Amino acid sequence: MNYGVVFYILGWILKSEAIFLVFPFIVGFIYGENQGFSFLITAGICLVCGVLLNIKKPKKGGLYLKEGFFVVALGWIIMSCFGAIPFVMSGEIPRYIDAVFETASGFSTTGATILTDVEAMCHACLFWRSFTHLLGGMGVFVFLSALLPMLGGNTLNLMKAESTGPSVDKLVPRIKDTVKILYTVYLAMGAVECIILLICGMDLFESLCTTFGTIGTGGFGIRNDSLASLSPTIQWVVTIFMILSGVNYSMYFLILRKKFKQALSMEEIRLYFIVILISIVAISVNIWNMYPTASETIRTAAFQVGTLITSTGFATTDFDLWPAFSKMVLILCMFMGACAGSTGGGLKMSRILILWKSIRNEIKNLIHPRSVTKVRMDGGVIAPETVHSTCVYVAVFFVIFGVSTLLLSLDGHDFTTNFTAVLATLNNMGPGFNKVGPTCNFAFFSDLSKLTLIFDMLAGRLELLPLLLVITPKSWRKNL
Amino acid sequence: MNYGVVFYILGWILKSEAIFLVFPFIVGFIYGENQGFSFLITAGICLVCGVLLNIKKPKKGGLYLKEGFFVVALGWIIMSCFGAIPFVMSGEIPRYIDAVFETASGFSTTGATILTDVEAMCHACLFWRSFTHLLGGMGVFVFLSALLPMLGGNTLNLMKAESTGPSVDKLVPRIKDTVKILYTVYLAMGAVECIILLICGMDLFESLCTTFGTIGTGGFGIRNDSLASLSPTIQWVVTIFMILSGVNYSMYFLILRKKFKQALSMEEIRLYFIVILISIVAISVNIWNMYPTASETIRTAAFQVGTLITSTGFATTDFDLWPAFSKMVLILCMFMGACAGSTGGGLKMSRILILWKSIRNEIKNLIHPRSVTKVRMDGGVIAPETVHSTCVYVAVFFVIFGVSTLLLSLDGHDFTTNFTAVLATLNNMGPGFNKVGPTCNFAFFSDLSKLTLIFDMLAGRLELLPLLLVITPKSWRKNL
Repeated sequence: MNYGVVFYILGWILKSEAIFLVFPFIVGFIYGENQGFSFLITAGICLVCGVLLNIKKPKKGGLYLKEGFFVVALGWIIMSCFGAIPFVMSGEIPRYIDAVFETASGFSTTGATILTDVEAMCHACLFWRSFTHLLGGMGVFVFLSALLPMLGGNTLNLMKAESTGPSVDKLVPRIKDTVKILYTVYLAMGAVECIILLICGMDLFESLCTTFGTIGTGGFGIRNDSLASLSPTIQWVVTIFMILSGVNYSMYFLILRKKFKQALSMEEIRLYFIVILISIVAISVNIWNMYPTASETIRTAAFQVGTLITSTGFATTDFDLWPAFSKMVLILCMFMGACAGSTGGGLKMSRILILWKSIRNEIKNLIHPRSVTKVRMDGGVIAPETVHSTCVYVAVFFVIFGVSTLLLSLDGHDFTTNFTAVLATLNNMGPGFNKVGPTCNFAFFSDLSKLTLIFDMLAGRLELLPLLLVITPKSWRKNL
Repeated sequence: MNYGVVFYILGWILKSEAIFLVFPFIVGFIYGENQGFSFLITAGICLVCGVLLNIKKPKKGGLYLKEGFFVVALGWIIMSCFGAIPFVMSGEIPRYIDAVFETASGFSTTGATILTDVEAMCHACLFWRSFTHLLGGMGVFVFLSALLPMLGGNTLNLMKAESTGPSVDKLVPRIKDTVKILYTVYLAMGAVECIILLICGMDLFESLCTTFGTIGTGGFGIRNDSLASLSPTIQWVVTIFMILSGVNYSMYFLILRKKFKQALSMEEIRLYFIVILISIVAISVNIWNMYPTASETIRTAAFQVGTLITSTGFATTDFDLWPAFSKMVLILCMFMGACAGSTGGGLKMSRILILWKSIRNEIKNLIHPRSVTKVRMDGGVIAPETVHSTCVYVAVFFVIFGVSTLLLSLDGHDFTTNFTAVLATLNNMGPGFNKVGPTCNFAFFSDLSKLTLIFDMLAGRLELLPLLLVITPKSWRKNL
């Protein structure tokens, strides 16, 4: 490990977090809340630590894939640990592990909470919770790497660790420009949603928080009933923006370049919308008698499908009360997740396509043994290494899934609770079923379980390998 | 598809089933039961159909992998459909779909039952249920292929479809000899167990049925409480033979050849015993206060671990009442399964090793990008195709798992029931949790769910691909 570079980047991350922490302080100041000062103090701590880490400039600037993965994983852990301090300092979340859980849940855009009464929180803390979704959604390091001068072209390795999907899509030759395009689309989408919500009559604070939760596919809300008490129009607006946030950002890039045909022919996008449509129809039919009107039924089904397939985690109804079939459709949506190159979590549609095509090829090979079968997508051939790492990804996913569920079962809760708690955190969803259903929270878990779930949230957001690298002792060895 | 060969082999399968059906008739005759005659009549039906299918000899004798997989899958379906007739004819299981469920459960060595009162059954039917475990355990086609003259060397493709694990281990150059060795070990182990059970005071009928259920890793018992009311000694005997039946038969072959060192150094075997040991210890600690004595605790833990890791499915206690942690350990055992090349079900230890090593290689590659990493086992290199098909196998497994659970959820039962029902059938286990726990049965499911579970049982026994091939319309096309 090239610790020079690692410390250097971590220093910058802490300095950035110091700047981020000023925003909730300003919110607290506007609302005249004393709690806001805890953010300012934490910002100071971050700044000092950041400057200390940056004193020594690294001799060698090389940032290989290993360092990229390592520093991103470590950085996310550190961001969560420092970002949790204001919650404890302000007294809003007394226990530090709970505060770390909440912060990691925010940065990883999970949206799982340990709070029993969200509405009792101060504005500064509520803002910080939602703001972490905005930061975590598109990625902090990617943003940073566009600014850092010394890393140069090597920042692709940071992006590889932070972006979602089986392979990184460099939209334009220069990474800096790619990052600019991604962030512009991301923030523009947020701005549009926020303005529409304001027009719908939501106040600015709630509009901002809801927007952060939507476009980061996070899911923290500022009401105890999530979005259930909001107007149908607002629910539809959020549904649409959630689904749009789960789309591969390459599509928006193609649309901006006026390549509409190419944009709409992306197999991943097609599958994504087909799955959403089928799920909404299947659930609507299944819950037809549970809601007074057809429009409410469809709206509720669409919202819940949108929120879970994109791993956002808002809710407008207690879907834990739905019939078994609808719940199973939601669980499958949770597993599948959104598109690669989006802010959503889960397995991702492109991985499902790759796996599906690998299966089809295996059968094709049985029928026609001499045929050459390659996995093709959007007209091109997927590299065998990508196919292989997709398979390995799935294997790692289920290993982490199994071990996490085993650790959670030590608390003695039922299988559905443990299973869906892991699913909800590993896929950055938020709510699960039974004791972690949409009307519940994660406060009742033991500290060991909370640590496990914190690991799962970060591992899920960074797509498993970076976190595995950090817990592999060999990777900590100094480079010779 | 070369239908000439397909019909020819299916004819032989039906003729063999006719012979198999004579055994329960004899049992019925000895016990003076009228129900026995339904077996004789069915044997006649099988014989006629078999002879009709065999009238035309195939022109081309080629038996490619496609035909091998296809004919084996179709053959198992047909065996289950014909084998179910006596249950209906004798009136013991009135509904045909239930009878097919029971027969498929027998042949696939699952051991899941739709019977609420096993003890009310006649001896002939009880014998047939257990006898199907013996036939299904090692494989019917493998046995047959050693006898069929015309197929010659091509029978490897039948064996590939029927034997378990990621690759077929030809112990000796000639398949016929391999089959002979496998069957000799299999039957010898059964004979030893049966004799020990007789010495322990069990009557011959129960000894035979229990032995068939053990060495075939099936799990049908002839008592309503499975093996709970039997003596501790007998429970230990069955535990040991269950665990021995889950061992890769290559080990026995090596031991017969006096290659002890090589036998004991097989990585798969080591992992298998380590997992068993850890599971027994973990569960024993967890359930320490539930049983009066330490010996009973350990015996109960060992029996349940043995029965579920080998996918047998006997039970000596209602493990559904165990604490969540022990249940989760059992669920993980159910997923992992026994060794490749054994009669057990599940993912198989060798696949887990391959996956685990692939994951380790992926991380190693991150740390040392220029290192060459191949998956090695027992000193040799695993072919990349085997690694790839292992990954695809896992993907197929979870696709079938998801779709099956979705179909079952239409019945409206809870998630744990649906999830473990699919797990118990797809991995040829037998009992699951909640409504399909060890004291329950599968009778309450709808016909659609039963059909799904029948598919899962056969798909699990034949390791997925053969059954997928049969439901792929393209594979039914005639060869040009």
